[in-house]
Amino acid sequence: MNTNPQPVVSAGLLVIGDEILSGRTPDRNINTIARFCTELGIDLSQVRVVADDVDEVVEAVNALRTRYTHVFTTGGIGPTHDDITAQCMATAFGVELVENPEAIAMMEHRFGDSRALTAARRRMARIPAGATLIPNIVSAAPGFKIGNVYVMAGVPKIMQAMLENIAPTLEGGRRLFSRTIEVGVGESAIAGALKKIQDEYDDVKIGSYPRMGEKPVFTEVVLRGADELRLDEAAQKVHRAVNKAHAEHGVNLG
Amino acid sequence: MNTNPQPVVSAGLLVIGDEILSGRTPDRNINTIARFCTELGIDLSQVRVVADDVDEVVEAVNALRTRYTHVFTTGGIGPTHDDITAQCMATAFGVELVENPEAIAMMEHRFGDSRALTAARRRMARIPAGATLIPNIVSAAPGFKIGNVYVMAGVPKIMQAMLENIAPTLEGGRRLFSRTIEVGVGESAIAGALKKIQDEYDDVKIGSYPRMGEKPVFTEVVLRGADELRLDEAAQKVHRAVNKAHAEHGVNLG
Repeated sequence: MNTNPQPVVSAGLLVIGDEILSGRTPDRNINTIARFCTELGIDLSQVRVVADDVDEVVEAVNALRTRYTHVFTTGGIGPTHDDITAQCMATAFGVELVENPEAIAMMEHRFGDSRALTAARRRMARIPAGATLIPNIVSAAPGFKIGNVYVMAGVPKIMQAMLENIAPTLEGGRRLFSRTIEVGVGESAIAGALKKIQDEYDDVKIGSYPRMGEKPVFTEVVLRGADELRLDEAAQKVHRAVNKAHAEHGVNLG
Repeated sequence: MNTNPQPVVSAGLLVIGDEILSGRTPDRNINTIARFCTELGIDLSQVRVVADDVDEVVEAVNALRTRYTHVFTTGGIGPTHDDITAQCMATAFGVELVENPEAIAMMEHRFGDSRALTAARRRMARIPAGATLIPNIVSAAPGFKIGNVYVMAGVPKIMQAMLENIAPTLEGGRRLFSRTIEVGVGESAIAGALKKIQDEYDDVKIGSYPRMGEKPVFTEVVLRGADELRLDEAAQKVHRAVNKAHAEHGVNLG
């Protein structure tokens, strides 16, 4: 045979959280990640939802990571006692869970003062040894990548921002490009313009990720698409809209 | 120890469908079944979403059914080539897939004429040997129970009607009662009254399940709750509202 088929890039998704299994919180990440994979030409092959239980999480992540190219996890990386995902990943990979200086620095930078790093927040800097961090524009506490496993937050907006972050480096069946634009005004000041640009460029995905509950206002706009020319055109228009909004509302960017 | 703890009744859920994994269709059943289990005192312990692939489905259902008290599945019981759930269950349980006379009768009764039973529809009457049927008020083609596995439709409204059907017989940590009321007018004619009764009885769940796309109009109203007295009170009010609507709009019940 002369055909040279593209190797299948597959993925598993592990959703971690009692609140999903009890029905208290409807999952909003499965569909987002499913569409994300399809766009990138990644075959999402299986999803599992498990409880906040070390044995369950370790068993599931080991089953998925040995079987698929990539594994995504959502949930369980917050500051409370039931956030056990980092510990589970350390156990699954047989490594130590250690306070990560880079994660501490990210949170200090964000909270502006090391005193704001409470014990609960420090807990979110405990990362399996050898993992690389996934920055979190929305609320500072990072996700991480260990082996072929991408560990992300459960809050949909934070999870989406982390996905955008890993998209450019992720092996997929299809190459996607992205552009990030920093915005120093509130989302509402650019929402109308973004909508218009999105309507005009339906082959470009435009996402907006505001930093959560803090001043000064800061938002990242991320554009993603397969055609770099179209992407740059759309990004140019977003830039113009943002500059206009900055001029009107005053810029908050340092 | 003198304590006599309630045995844990557990469940696994298997969502079957390429369309969920590709992101084309957002799942709407996980949360419904999660809340249903919580109400009944059943511990939903794991959810898996797998593709329309015999090996994947068989592996997942075998993993779940040996581990949990109950297993629910959704999806893959329609009339098309990619509806393989019945075949998968036959394979998983090592039994034959046979045309079920009771299922044929249900569909004939509904379609009114055996000629309306096209080959595609007959396909939906192929049920693993030894399974018992789960009636489908909405679109006639039944689900089924084999061993501890409840096989249901993927369409949320049909799935919910099937859940209501199995609820009274399902072993749970908590006993729930139900009342079913047949309605021979369209839902809109009783929607206002149902809303008022639901608001008054927040400890009773009131569901409404119209038969799909056929005349005469027919709806089942199902009430569910732990307190039989309150349930009967609410059911009495629904009866009165239905009788009033029948008198106003003309009854379609045979």
